[in-house]
Amino acid sequence: MLKEENTQEILHDLGEQEILNRLRKYMDYGQIDDDTALIKSYKKELIINTDMLVEDVHFSEITTNPNHIGWKAVATNLSDLACSGLEEVIGITVGLSAPSSTPWSWVDGVYTGIKAALNKFGGKLLGGDCSNGKQKTLCITALGTKGPLNLHRSNARPGDYLITSGPHGLSRLGLSLLLSDPITKSINVPNLLKEHAIKAHQEPQPPIKALQTLLKCKPYAMPWNAAATDSSDGLLEAIESLCRSSNCTAVVDHKNLPKHADWPSGKQWNDWCLEGGEDFELVVSLPPNWAKAWLKAMPCTKAIGRMKEGPAKAMWSNGETIQKAMDTKFEHF
Amino acid sequence: MLKEENTQEILHDLGEQEILNRLRKYMDYGQIDDDTALIKSYKKELIINTDMLVEDVHFSEITTNPNHIGWKAVATNLSDLACSGLEEVIGITVGLSAPSSTPWSWVDGVYTGIKAALNKFGGKLLGGDCSNGKQKTLCITALGTKGPLNLHRSNARPGDYLITSGPHGLSRLGLSLLLSDPITKSINVPNLLKEHAIKAHQEPQPPIKALQTLLKCKPYAMPWNAAATDSSDGLLEAIESLCRSSNCTAVVDHKNLPKHADWPSGKQWNDWCLEGGEDFELVVSLPPNWAKAWLKAMPCTKAIGRMKEGPAKAMWSNGETIQKAMDTKFEHF
Repeated sequence: MLKEENTQEILHDLGEQEILNRLRKYMDYGQIDDDTALIKSYKKELIINTDMLVEDVHFSEITTNPNHIGWKAVATNLSDLACSGLEEVIGITVGLSAPSSTPWSWVDGVYTGIKAALNKFGGKLLGGDCSNGKQKTLCITALGTKGPLNLHRSNARPGDYLITSGPHGLSRLGLSLLLSDPITKSINVPNLLKEHAIKAHQEPQPPIKALQTLLKCKPYAMPWNAAATDSSDGLLEAIESLCRSSNCTAVVDHKNLPKHADWPSGKQWNDWCLEGGEDFELVVSLPPNWAKAWLKAMPCTKAIGRMKEGPAKAMWSNGETIQKAMDTKFEHF
Repeated sequence: MLKEENTQEILHDLGEQEILNRLRKYMDYGQIDDDTALIKSYKKELIINTDMLVEDVHFSEITTNPNHIGWKAVATNLSDLACSGLEEVIGITVGLSAPSSTPWSWVDGVYTGIKAALNKFGGKLLGGDCSNGKQKTLCITALGTKGPLNLHRSNARPGDYLITSGPHGLSRLGLSLLLSDPITKSINVPNLLKEHAIKAHQEPQPPIKALQTLLKCKPYAMPWNAAATDSSDGLLEAIESLCRSSNCTAVVDHKNLPKHADWPSGKQWNDWCLEGGEDFELVVSLPPNWAKAWLKAMPCTKAIGRMKEGPAKAMWSNGETIQKAMDTKFEHF
């Protein structure tokens, strides 16, 4: 064990040139030789998003290996593109800083995860930069073409259905399982739910299929406008952000919270569903006819409430304001 | 003084939402409300570049205030776009991490510098992300359209002239002046040179005008191909990178090193010219006719040597290999 650690290559031994040389295999030929990457003309509107992921703030080696970290970084970004009407992923750039004592195998693992996600969801590794830094930090910028659908948080209208593309709270449960949190032992969590939860935490899927189905379901005569965001900061935060940007009230039906089939009942489990975060599902506000078509076409979607005129907030159908219960407010400062 | 420090707002007091709220003034309306930024269709090839800048590796508060840091981050990126044939800057995204104890005024200053550079060189602030982190880190991704010129490091050909768009070593001298390095006191540095050097260090200019002139000078019958890179990692490194990518030898004329008119003589000063770095000038390999036209059209350019067949290295015209002399190898690990 000691021997292995001693002979492990670290970034300091390699230096910047050799690191870039080794990253060549993940790039298209020639891109690493120039100062920029070239992107062919798409003749379409583009959407762009940047996410900054910092060790011990956004990820931890206890619960996610380097492969997962790379995969999640891409999935997080593509989830943002999806809820903005993505048509085709063009690619990503990667800024990476890490202490010079970091093993090369860590960087290699992160890039392997990045490449695996790009292979699955499309897009190229367009280049990037690496630097020495005290804390492992990944900054990913993703670029894609925008399809015909205009998805903005501000497009919600009173009368709309509020729909999610899938169950919530799984990633948070996965985290607790990976940390052997006592709460996951106090209750009998079915094995299938455990599997789904850990996968949701380590290898989340951006809601690209859900978006494609949403497009196909649009009733012919309706304009190409809808309100959407993703639930990366939790379901409740997603709903509230639609309310804030569209200046209306969301009325959520407590018995229709989007839960996994095997989800246990209890306050903690409800809180995780509403505020667990890192769910990467679409949260969409849609006119009724379109909503019904999407619900029918995609069984994992769930109608959780309606939008109505009123102050920008989320309330239960009994009229009570939905209060945030968890400490985790995704306040990254 | 103590009172002022106590009442200074820090990021922890504001939280992520309030920070984003305050950054709104730097963005186009509405972009901060959505998960991504929308970019209109350009119907052209695009070029993209990402730079990761870490405090105490790439910048220091001793020599650069927050305004300078923001400006330099943009200039660094646009310099890379320029040496890849930039036509129009579309915009940038900014990933920023900083300790939660960082004063808001620091972030505000960085964004002020970023915006000033975009106002000068074009392009919008397209969005970004911010996070808590142990070390101040900026990750900027710049996107632009590519003009007709195909500038690649691999396009140098034997017989080409090697030309730089301006003098080298100024930024390194500026750094030494700002640090009160004894070497800058042992010699009488003219005031004008001091001014230019400090400005080159704190407020560098990407070589966009030089590129535009290069385009205008292209002889009619010649193909739109040339070799270029920028000298952000030093003049010698830029020359060597052209040699490596084009697999030929650069022969540099010692008496034609690109120096400021008032540049002192001596080994240290030659070393700074060749390896000081952060010069952000174009280093171009051009067929003779095109080279002569550019030299004539732009007085600050300088022909420093020729390319010839041979191994991928830089040598003096007396046949000696140019040796790296400085410790600063821009090895950021």
